[in-house]
Amino acid sequence: MHTVGRHLLVELHDCDKTLLDDLDAVKTTIREAAKRAGASIVSESFHRFAPQGVSASVLIAESHLSIHTWPEAGYAAADLYTCGELNPMPGVEYLAEAFRATTFSCAEIIRGLDDDIRTAALPESPGRHNIAALSIVTELL
Amino acid sequence: MHTVGRHLLVELHDCDKTLLDDLDAVKTTIREAAKRAGASIVSESFHRFAPQGVSASVLIAESHLSIHTWPEAGYAAADLYTCGELNPMPGVEYLAEAFRATTFSCAEIIRGLDDDIRTAALPESPGRHNIAALSIVTELL
Repeated sequence: MHTVGRHLLVELHDCDKTLLDDLDAVKTTIREAAKRAGASIVSESFHRFAPQGVSASVLIAESHLSIHTWPEAGYAAADLYTCGELNPMPGVEYLAEAFRATTFSCAEIIRGLDDDIRTAALPESPGRHNIAALSIVTELL
Repeated sequence: MHTVGRHLLVELHDCDKTLLDDLDAVKTTIREAAKRAGASIVSESFHRFAPQGVSASVLIAESHLSIHTWPEAGYAAADLYTCGELNPMPGVEYLAEAFRATTFSCAEIIRGLDDDIRTAALPESPGRHNIAALSIVTELL
């Protein structure tokens, strides 16, 4: 099951607009979210857009965590892709708390080779989908 | 529709194992894939794992592109998240070609605020899903 990963797609609504536009706040928040997910950061990228908006991505030993913010809409889109035995949900919940989201939604996509997914003992999770059921497969010549 | 994004989750099967473990090859490939998707790179992160495997993530003006490789399994997982009017599929197809994948699968998740998604004029796409249909929504106190 070594290729199996949990890819969480997270939508954060009605966040604090000032925090979403604050590069330092986004840096601090993504690092703490990675920590709460039990992940180890190995590399980081950040960018602040003009006139507004921040993107952040951290590579972790277990895959990645990224966030993109639309301060003017109070909206942020994050994704947390983890392999191994991590429990990523505390990281997701921390993102929502830190940005003061009123609501958030989370979809979990299970990724990896089919044989590995079949033998993986994954914890129960609402909103879970298997990548094989979502994808169109293309054979290359 | 300014918050609407297309998040493509890409599974690459039976790739060239040597290329998947070659940091320079992964760097070159992700940069070219971003270019073919019409994206502009604003920041980059790369990491090579011991004993094998590479992770790469590039922030683009239009969100991000990331890839994680499992050379021993000939497998790589990529995701390409684009906002705006880009056509990301040439970037996905290039990833498959460059890593010499025998097959690849692609699921497209439409992300963003509901009102923006409803008014967005998106091109037809197989394997498309709306984040709202996949997610569990949580209200915070």
